[in-house]
Parts: sequence; structure tokens; C-alpha cells
Amino acid sequence: MSNALNSIFKARSVAIVGASKDPSKRGNQAIRKLRADGYEGRIFPINPKETEILGIGAYPSILAVRERIDVVLICTPARTLPSILEQCGQKNVPGAVILAAGFSEIGAEGEAIAQATLEAARKNNVRVIGPNTNGVFNLQNKMNMVGVQDVEPGNIGICSQSGNMMLAFVTEAKRRGGVGFSSYVGVGNQLDVTLAEYLEYFGEDNDTKASVFYVEGFQDGRAFLDTCRHVTQKKPVVVYKSGRTEAGQVAASSHTGSLASSFDLTRHLLRQAGATVVEQSDKILSIAEGLSKLTVPKGGRVAILADGGGHATITVDALVDAGVELAELSTGTVAKLNNVLPTAASCVNPVDVAGGTDDDPSVSAQCAEIILADDNVDILMIIGMYGGFAERFNPALLDNEIETSQRLAELPEKYGKPLIVQSVYNTVRPKPIEVLKEAGVPVFVWPEPAVRCISELIDYARARTRNALSPLIVPDGPTEQGKAILSGVIGEGRDAFYEHEAKDLLVQYGVSVPPQMLATCEADLKQVPVDLGNGPMAMKIVSQDILHKSDAGGVRLKISGEDELRSAYKDILANARGHDPEADLRGVLVAPMADSGVEVIIGVVHDAMFGPVMMFGLGGIFVEVLKDVSFRALPMSRADAESMIDDIQSSKILEGVRGALPVDKTALVDLMMKISQLALAHPEIREIDLNPVILRHDGYAVVDARMILNSKGQ
Amino acid sequence: MSNALNSIFKARSVAIVGASKDPSKRGNQAIRKLRADGYEGRIFPINPKETEILGIGAYPSILAVRERIDVVLICTPARTLPSILEQCGQKNVPGAVILAAGFSEIGAEGEAIAQATLEAARKNNVRVIGPNTNGVFNLQNKMNMVGVQDVEPGNIGICSQSGNMMLAFVTEAKRRGGVGFSSYVGVGNQLDVTLAEYLEYFGEDNDTKASVFYVEGFQDGRAFLDTCRHVTQKKPVVVYKSGRTEAGQVAASSHTGSLASSFDLTRHLLRQAGATVVEQSDKILSIAEGLSKLTVPKGGRVAILADGGGHATITVDALVDAGVELAELSTGTVAKLNNVLPTAASCVNPVDVAGGTDDDPSVSAQCAEIILADDNVDILMIIGMYGGFAERFNPALLDNEIETSQRLAELPEKYGKPLIVQSVYNTVRPKPIEVLKEAGVPVFVWPEPAVRCISELIDYARARTRNALSPLIVPDGPTEQGKAILSGVIGEGRDAFYEHEAKDLLVQYGVSVPPQMLATCEADLKQVPVDLGNGPMAMKIVSQDILHKSDAGGVRLKISGEDELRSAYKDILANARGHDPEADLRGVLVAPMADSGVEVIIGVVHDAMFGPVMMFGLGGIFVEVLKDVSFRALPMSRADAESMIDDIQSSKILEGVRGALPVDKTALVDLMMKISQLALAHPEIREIDLNPVILRHDGYAVVDARMILNSKGQ
Repeated sequence: MSNALNSIFKARSVAIVGASKDPSKRGNQAIRKLRADGYEGRIFPINPKETEILGIGAYPSILAVRERIDVVLICTPARTLPSILEQCGQKNVPGAVILAAGFSEIGAEGEAIAQATLEAARKNNVRVIGPNTNGVFNLQNKMNMVGVQDVEPGNIGICSQSGNMMLAFVTEAKRRGGVGFSSYVGVGNQLDVTLAEYLEYFGEDNDTKASVFYVEGFQDGRAFLDTCRHVTQKKPVVVYKSGRTEAGQVAASSHTGSLASSFDLTRHLLRQAGATVVEQSDKILSIAEGLSKLTVPKGGRVAILADGGGHATITVDALVDAGVELAELSTGTVAKLNNVLPTAASCVNPVDVAGGTDDDPSVSAQCAEIILADDNVDILMIIGMYGGFAERFNPALLDNEIETSQRLAELPEKYGKPLIVQSVYNTVRPKPIEVLKEAGVPVFVWPEPAVRCISELIDYARARTRNALSPLIVPDGPTEQGKAILSGVIGEGRDAFYEHEAKDLLVQYGVSVPPQMLATCEADLKQVPVDLGNGPMAMKIVSQDILHKSDAGGVRLKISGEDELRSAYKDILANARGHDPEADLRGVLVAPMADSGVEVIIGVVHDAMFGPVMMFGLGGIFVEVLKDVSFRALPMSRADAESMIDDIQSSKILEGVRGALPVDKTALVDLMMKISQLALAHPEIREIDLNPVILRHDGYAVVDARMILNSKGQ
Repeated sequence: MSNALNSIFKARSVAIVGASKDPSKRGNQAIRKLRADGYEGRIFPINPKETEILGIGAYPSILAVRERIDVVLICTPARTLPSILEQCGQKNVPGAVILAAGFSEIGAEGEAIAQATLEAARKNNVRVIGPNTNGVFNLQNKMNMVGVQDVEPGNIGICSQSGNMMLAFVTEAKRRGGVGFSSYVGVGNQLDVTLAEYLEYFGEDNDTKASVFYVEGFQDGRAFLDTCRHVTQKKPVVVYKSGRTEAGQVAASSHTGSLASSFDLTRHLLRQAGATVVEQSDKILSIAEGLSKLTVPKGGRVAILADGGGHATITVDALVDAGVELAELSTGTVAKLNNVLPTAASCVNPVDVAGGTDDDPSVSAQCAEIILADDNVDILMIIGMYGGFAERFNPALLDNEIETSQRLAELPEKYGKPLIVQSVYNTVRPKPIEVLKEAGVPVFVWPEPAVRCISELIDYARARTRNALSPLIVPDGPTEQGKAILSGVIGEGRDAFYEHEAKDLLVQYGVSVPPQMLATCEADLKQVPVDLGNGPMAMKIVSQDILHKSDAGGVRLKISGEDELRSAYKDILANARGHDPEADLRGVLVAPMADSGVEVIIGVVHDAMFGPVMMFGLGGIFVEVLKDVSFRALPMSRADAESMIDDIQSSKILEGVRGALPVDKTALVDLMMKISQLALAHPEIREIDLNPVILRHDGYAVVDARMILNSKGQ
């Protein structure tokens, strides 16, 4: 794959199919644009009716070109595509960029053309970008196939399902300065090359330091997650998923033909794979800029060097809001700063120079270096008015300030720690700030975007470490007994497991399940004290026809002694029979009442886009009303399971509230990993629902378990 | 007050005390700045050693000036102030702007100078801005006493505790275009004029359409709230409170001498008073711009007119995230749009023109007018690429596009509905967009800031209506019986009410309290079935020395029958005695067990900054762990109480979950209003805590009530 995309993005020769002498046609504009941007490869206009276009010799067909063609840009209508791709195959052209629209989005006829085009591409070994793309550019290759002017070169790769978004990024970058792009691809209808493949390309492209994905829908979400997990070990991946809200999904599906999953699920899975998920489009560029430039920190403790209280306070507020830790400077650092700064200065974090740099900007670099040398500091933010000394105080300070910028720019590499700058003066882009930007130091006008970059950088560093150190746990396969339990369910033609079957299967994968007994006649109840003891019991109807056991009067709790057991047994059966006279009643499940604790839900679903996914949340209103749940794709690592617990907003409740002891998190993580193993070993089970699991200080009790097969075990 | 501030901001003559020939001195820069910005009033340099400064005749003292002086700008050190203010008094100068620092922030000596300065100001009837301010400007008066260049004129007033923040706004406005300022005041140490007074000035100033307050600490929060409630009836007030987080508060208190209250409380109280509270500094300017320009809508239903799917989808996502309602276009509107737009267009909301404006931009105005005429639409957003037609398609479209902008700009007034535009092309500021901006239509580059403006505008409109229609409810005064109950507590030298006293006081203000009985000996228990019935009872120790009754074994629940009552009575007294042998035990309170329902907490505290404040939240973990509570300043309106309930994140639980009926919200609001009356009638009660109140479908039960007096009823 990567070779074909490399050939396209780094093409040394481009054929323009549908090249034209008419300046209003895309087949004319494309040639002009390539030349205007200084493309140094060969350009072959293809048009059977012309011998020359814009001064370049034209060819009647691709086959007529003698030289190698790396990519064809196809500007002709949809119906022409299969035969053009046939020719590409004959000529061994590795890639085609198809602009034409009019495919699946226009209905059955378009769908047929799309199919024929895809078949031709596959048969002829041509990788297709689009159709319905506005093109690609690669600035290092000076190859611009998109009708957009003066793109700032830089290190951000963009992959977008909306051409307008690319235009928005490009114009915003031009206004801001200091940020630019390596490559762009408009993915169009994704007929052939997938988002995962573009991501792999950006991962391997040395000119790309971070990539941005504007995604309306994932067509193969699982492949994207897998690739993302690898690529983020090397460089950051920023994802904006549009059509997140229900209303939004309508707008997205009218725009493309993609499916949209629940956004919470998508966000959690992308983060699990190391991606940086941005939910506001106006933040994408600044976050990508920060991540593409900043040194990845070893920890998350942030120091602030400020020249003015207002912005320092705002920065601290924003850091605390984002959950970022403020560094505590060592006494040695405080002493050194005290030596350099005036008495009025604050030499603890946030450091406020209190005018101590006004006469000599180089003191800023001196302070920055003192702070960065401190082992208690992982990240430095310079906050306030840096770069405005000459403007504010004395024009003669400019040289000093430029030298200071050069010195500052060397510090991240010297200390292996990121440095970010916020300055009010960035609006007017004075030379000392431009020097910083050119040297790769991100500079922002307001504190909040800088803080957001730092917060995302810390998250990225943590995800990278987590994914590098904590391996995905994959089972060897299903156990023999597990297969036997499934065969039993399938053999009876059922979708749903009986509760005792589900619990038996859990036991096969090492889950500890409370003792239980299936009573199929009153006489069985005699065995209860022998097998389950004399404590109070829970009794539940067992029937594939009764889904909501409580509603059917099929549950009795806190039942003690033989008389109560017998009477409850009879009641449950009578209620169930009354609820549904046709129901197949298999008996009554008896189990000791669980001790009280914190109720949680652990479930597994098979998402259409992302495959098997575990869900975790607190039981009752937390799931039902507040929808406070977290998701992870399976297989997952232990670290994933741990982070999944911390991800819910009500996770504090697990620490023990109102005098309760904290729950046993190790046991909870063990349980989650075992359920993951079960789900992966038996992909025929489409849904698992342990609800509730009661967590205690010393373990857990799976109180109820539900499993559903994927349409009769297929 | 207002007259003095008017004299300062609209001064026709300025005396510069400490005027200087030295260009590096503030007393020289100030004169140059005033002249550079075209100040048309008189300037009187005051310096006993000079006869002329910068070509203007100098005076040895204020008293030597014959003409009227509206304001003095004092550039001399702190110690000179009392005598200068003395002279101001003799000369009837209404206001002084004091730049000098070195007051309370430097300790005892500075504090003494500050006191002397304040006394001189009060005695001489001079209103003081500062000290430690960087000055004021009023662009309509061409009066700029601040060392900042080229300020964009406009309609936003700024009041800031940080001069750097003003600089940040001014530079950002210059970069953005289309937004500017009426006046600025740096409040410095707020020795005399308060934030509330500046707010009142902005409220009355016709050149100010919206004001921005950057606040590190409120010195008189209650006055600010009261003024804000009035001013927001006329124009929006945007407040950024810095030092919100604990760490941030440290930074703020080292910067000024102000106290900082809990930010959640501050935010809720400011919103109650109609203010727009912004929590990110980089959003302040765009929100103020939007609010200063947009027509106040009658409802909150938003329509989108887009030329491109990507940005429309982002806008819908952002609107839904912000809880804003999407308008449903009437069938008539859809039909009219269908007539104007091509077949591929989407004529429901979000409307997508699908290229239907590419050849003729005026179609945009036509569609906008069709949508705005729809009674189902309150607000219109134009989204995508507006203003880029000439740039993108054909330069010949420019005139059409400019005319279209002129037409669009007339629509808000014509239909009485706000119009906001988001365009990628705003980065390059083409003429059609500049026309919109000049005509007062806000234009943003990205959808999210536009959505944020709309969302804040809707909130502002709602708060304005709420405060206009729902009056603050103030009690006539304490009831006689209420006074008697307080006298009882005070008479015994206690701070804390006994529970039965607190409940008796609640009854005085119309709160329905479950029947209860204070048993002071076992024999009293005989009366329980007579007075309280035969249901299960709750029994609680009554002692001022036992705060945590449960921990002391002082609570027994679900007690039935005389034997159980007697045994529980003895146990409670024995436990209490065991817990604290010295405790003064008054007896045992007996009350019927409350029916189950939703537990909530209602409390009243006296905030140091804002005075009496009510708190509301769900009981248990929601308050203790999730800290999900809302606040309102007292007195409040019924609408305040209603919104207070909706403000908590877990308010859905009150709607009835897991089959429960919704709670009786009317009864809850009644209860809150009655507690408010009680708190206002008895300001000596510094804390009221009803925890829990159990809400049911058909009313409420106050299960426990605690009240604490303000140090022995003073």
C-alpha cells in the first residue's frame, strides 16, 4: 500500500487525463497550478483532440506516453473511469486521483459506476484516491493538484473528508504564521484507499511531524485504530470527528454515505489508540501545531515564567481546569531565580519576573534555563508579553531580544523538555517572535490555546507510553468447556444464554461467580442449605421467553428457610406463567444474596465500525440517567482497563464515599480482562452484559449475567 | 457617582500633575499621547519647576489654573497624593486618575498612605480612579491617558484589573477587524470608585453597547450584582473572573489585595444577575463583539444557511453541544427555498445551497430573507464561504456580492432577528465581508465562536426576560413567633438551634414540617401513638454538644411499638452519654419515618463577598462527591428558584428515573422561596442547612434541619 501512496504523493510524473485548453476547466487549471507551484516532475496532458496544451505536448491516451507515469489526475466524468483505469493497468501506473462526482451519493446508477471503477482499479492494481476528491498536494514535492493558493509549507499532514475544511486550515495558517503543511489528501468517497492507509502514509512520511484527520465517518474504524496505535508511537495524530450529535449525523449522512457511530464510543476508542481527539474545529490547527513542534515530555509538571500577573493567573486557571499539574520548583531553583530577579519578583511557580526583564530581555532566557534545568519541571511555558520589549520599552533592545529568542529556541533540545510561548505581541508578529517560530517554538496570542496544547501533549505522551509498555492481551482461543456451553445454547436454537449458562461460561474464563443452583422442581430446594448455606437467597426465573424478569414477577430477594424458599418458588413460577402462558420455563435460579457494595456494569458489544468494544460504568442512575460510561476496543491492555475506570466522571465513588472502603480495583481490572478474553475467544457472542457486578473492598460479585449470540451462533 | 465618572470619561480639560520635559517620564508621554490621539479639550501641565512643557504653558499647581479642570492625571509618587487631592477639592475637580503604585500591596507603610489618600478624596469630594492604574481612555472623547497605540474605536467598554489584558484585547481587535472599544478603565487598587460604579457608568454611556469586566476579585460583590441586574436590562455585561481555581487564587492574591470567593458560586450569582460569564480569556472579545452587535432574539430557534456540508455539520454539532435548539422550517419556507435553489440543495435546516449561489451571490440574501421571514426561526447563521465568491469563482461577482452584503445587513432590523456570519474568507477580509462588519454584522472565521455568541445571546435574552418579569421576593420582616424562637436560642447562649427549634422556625415561614415530638423522659413516649400515629418512627438525640448525631449513636430509624421506642430511647441516651459524658442532653426527637423519594439539600450561607446565598443540590454523593450544586443570591425570584433546579447536572433525576414519578417541583420551588424569606427575615442566622429534604411526587418532607446563628445572634 504504502508504496503506491508514496508514488502518488512523491510522483515524479503526472498525467492529466481530460487536459484542456479551456482555462475554466479543471484539466487546464490543474496544469497551471502544478507549474505555478514549481512542480519539477514531468507533466503529460492527455487529450485525444489536442497535440499541445499550455505549451506542453499532449498525448491521445495514457498508453501513448513512453515515459513512466507515477500518477494520473483524472478530470473526466465518472462513466469514463473503468476504461481509463484499464489503461493505467496496462501502463503500470500505480495511482490515480479521481475528481469526478456522481457515484453512490446519486443512487443506483452511480453505485454501478462506482462498483465498475473499483473492480477496474483492483484488477489493474491501481490505487485510487477519491472519487469526488478535490485532490492532493505535497509541498515538499512542489506538487499541488488542488486549486488553493500560497499554502504555507510545514510539517502537518491533512487528510479530510471536506475540501472546505482544508481551505479553512490553509487560510487560518496563512493568517497566523509559523504553521504550515506537508501534504493534503481529500479522501472523497474513499472508494479504494482508506483512512487507515492515508494514516500509515503520514506515519512513514519524514516531512510530516503530525497529521490531522477531519472525519465524517469511518468506513473501516478497526483498521484505523490499529494503524493509529502504531503511528502514534512515532508521531501525534489529531482527529476531528464531525456529525457527532444526532442532529449533526443527519447533516453528515446527507454529505457522504458513511455510517456514524456513537461519538462517546468513537472518542474513547481513538484515545485508547493514542490519537488526540479534538471536538472543536477552531482548535484543530493550534493543537496540531503544538503537537508537531513540541518535544514529548517525560512527565506532566508545568512551570510558568511570566512577566505580568494577569496572564499568569489565567494560565494557572486554565492548567488547573485541564487537570495539569503545576511543578514545584526546587529550593535551588528558587535561590538561583532570586539571584537573577528583583526583590518584587515571585520566584515560585508561577514565576513572575516583576519587571526584571524590562531592561534586559536576556534575563528571560537565563530564567528559562534555570527552570528547565530543574528536575521537578517537565514543561516550561513563557507567558505574557515576550517579544514586545523593543516595542514597549526601548527599540534599542531589539538585538538583545532576537539573541534571547535564539537562545530560548535551543533550550528544548538541550534539556529534552518542551517550551511553549504565549505573548500578546504575537498579534503583531515582531522579529523576536518570528525567530522563535522559525526555530520551531510554538507561540500563541492567548494562554488557553497554549494550555490546551500542553494538556494534549501530556495526554499524548502518556498514551504513547501506555501503549508501548502495556501489551494488548489476546486469548489463545476458546476453551473446550466454553465451546460445549455455546453448543448447548446453539443446539437448542436459542440466541440468549440462560443466566446460569452465562455464569458457567464466565467461570471457564476464570471469573469467580457466586455459587448458584438451578431448581427445576420444589424438591431441588432441599439442596439449597447444603450447597448455598443458610443465608438469605435471591431467586430468579429461568426462561428464554422472559427478558425482564422483575417486571414478570420472576424475581424474589432475601428469601430464608425452606418454607419461604418453597413459597417463593411457587410464586415465581405462577407469576411467570401468568405473565406469559406460552413461556418455556426452565426452573428457578437460586443464589445467596450478594453483600452490598458499589454496583457497576461491564458489557461487551460488537460495534459495526470498530468491532468488539467493552463498556464500563456505575450502575443505576449513573448509566441510565447520566450515561456516565467509558469504552475500550478489545483486545485491550491492563493499562486500558485501568484508564477505563478512571475515565468515568463518577469514578471517585469507587474510592469509597460516606465512610465506605475503596473498592478492590485490582480485582475489577482482573474481571474486565477476563471478560475481554471470553469475548475475544467467542466472537459469536454479540453482546455480554454483567449488570450489576457488585464491587466490594475485598472482591466482587457478578449478580446477573446476560449473553446473546450473534444470530444463532453464526 | 455617575456624574463624577462622566466628568472623568468625558473630560473637556485634563491637568497632568507631574508633567515633565523628560520624554521617558509618564508625565511627558501622557501629554504626547493625548495630543497624538487628537484630544480636543484643554491640557494643563502642572510642574512648579517649568513654565512650558511640549509647547504648552505649565502651571506651578492645580490652584494656579484659572479654568475649570474636569480631571487630573496624577503621575507623582504615592506620598504626594493627600496634598494634591486637597488642592483638587479646593478647585472643585471632580475626579483624579492616580498612576502611582506602592500602597496596600507593599505593606503597612503603603496602607497608611492609602488610608490618607482615601480620606483626602472623600473629604474633598474627589472621585479617584486607581491608584496603581495604567489609566483610562474614551475614544469618543479622543481622550487617551493610556500608553497604547491605535486603538480601534467601537462599542465595547472595558473595565480591567490587569492592564495587560486591555493590551491583549486591543491588539487582538486590531488583528481581527470589525470590533473596537468605547472606553477603558484600569481599576488598579479600587481605593475609591468600585466595579459596580464603573458598571453603572457603562450602563448609562450611549457609546457603549456591551461592557467587559476582567475581575481578579470583587471588593463589593453584592453592589456589583445589584447594578448588573439593572444594566443587563439595557445591554450585555461580559465578566471574566480570574483566579478561579485554588492555585489560581494564590496568583491573584499576590497580584492584588482582593478576596476571591468560590468560582461556582460567583458564576451562578453573576448569571442570575444577567451577566455573561466567560471562563476562557481568548473567548471574551468575540463574545463581547457578538453581544454588542446582535439584535436580542425573541426565542432560541436557530436556522443555518450554508454553502458546503463540512462547516454546516460542525455548526450543528456545536449548537447541539451548547444545548441550542435547531429551528424547524415551515413547509412554506421549504417550498420557497426549493423554488430558488437547485435540486441538489437541502431546503430543510441546515439549509445547504449546494452551489446554488456560486453564479449569483444575491441568492444568499434571497434565501436569508425567506428564512428570516419564517415565524419558526428566531436567529439566522450564514455558514461556510460567504464573501469568497469573487475570490473563488469569478472576480466579476464582486459588485453583486457587495450589494448582497448590504442587503443582508438590513435584514436584522427589518425582521427584528439576529444574523451572524461564519466565513473561511474572513481571514483575508474581502470587501463583501468588510461591508457586513461595518454594518454591524458579526463575522467569524470558525463556526464555534459564532455558535458561542449565539448561545450566550440566547442566555442573555432569557436572563433579561426572567429578571424583567419575575420580581425578587422580599419578606416584610421577621414574624413575632420567629423572633421569639431566636430569642430562646440566644437567651441560652447557643449558636446552634436544636432541630425542633429549627423546624418550628420553618413552620413560622409556612414550611410544612412532619409532626414531631421532643421526648424528655421515657414517659413522654406514651404520647407517641397519640400525636404521631402507629407507623415506624425516627428517633434522634437533641444536644447542642453533639453535632454528628449518627456517629455518636444518637439516631435510630424504623422504630415501632412502645417497647422498641423505650429501648431505643434508652440506647440513644446511653450512647450519647458514652460519646460525650459532658454533653448537655435535651431529650430525644421522635418523628414518623419519611416516605422514600429523592433526597435533596437546601442551604443558605452568608458569603463574605456576595451576602446571603442559597445552595441547592441532590443529597448524598451528588453533593459530597460530585459537588453538583447551584447557587442564587437572596432575595431571589421564583424564576431564579426554578432555574436553580435546572442548573444542577443531575436534575434529570428529579424527572423520575427507574419508573419513579417526577417530584413535585412546584412544592420544591415554594419551599425554596419560604426558606429564602426566613433567611432574609433573620439575617442573624448565618447558616441554614435542610439535609435531607425528601422530595416526592406529592410534596416534600424536611427530614433534618440545622441553623446556626451569626456569633450569638449579633
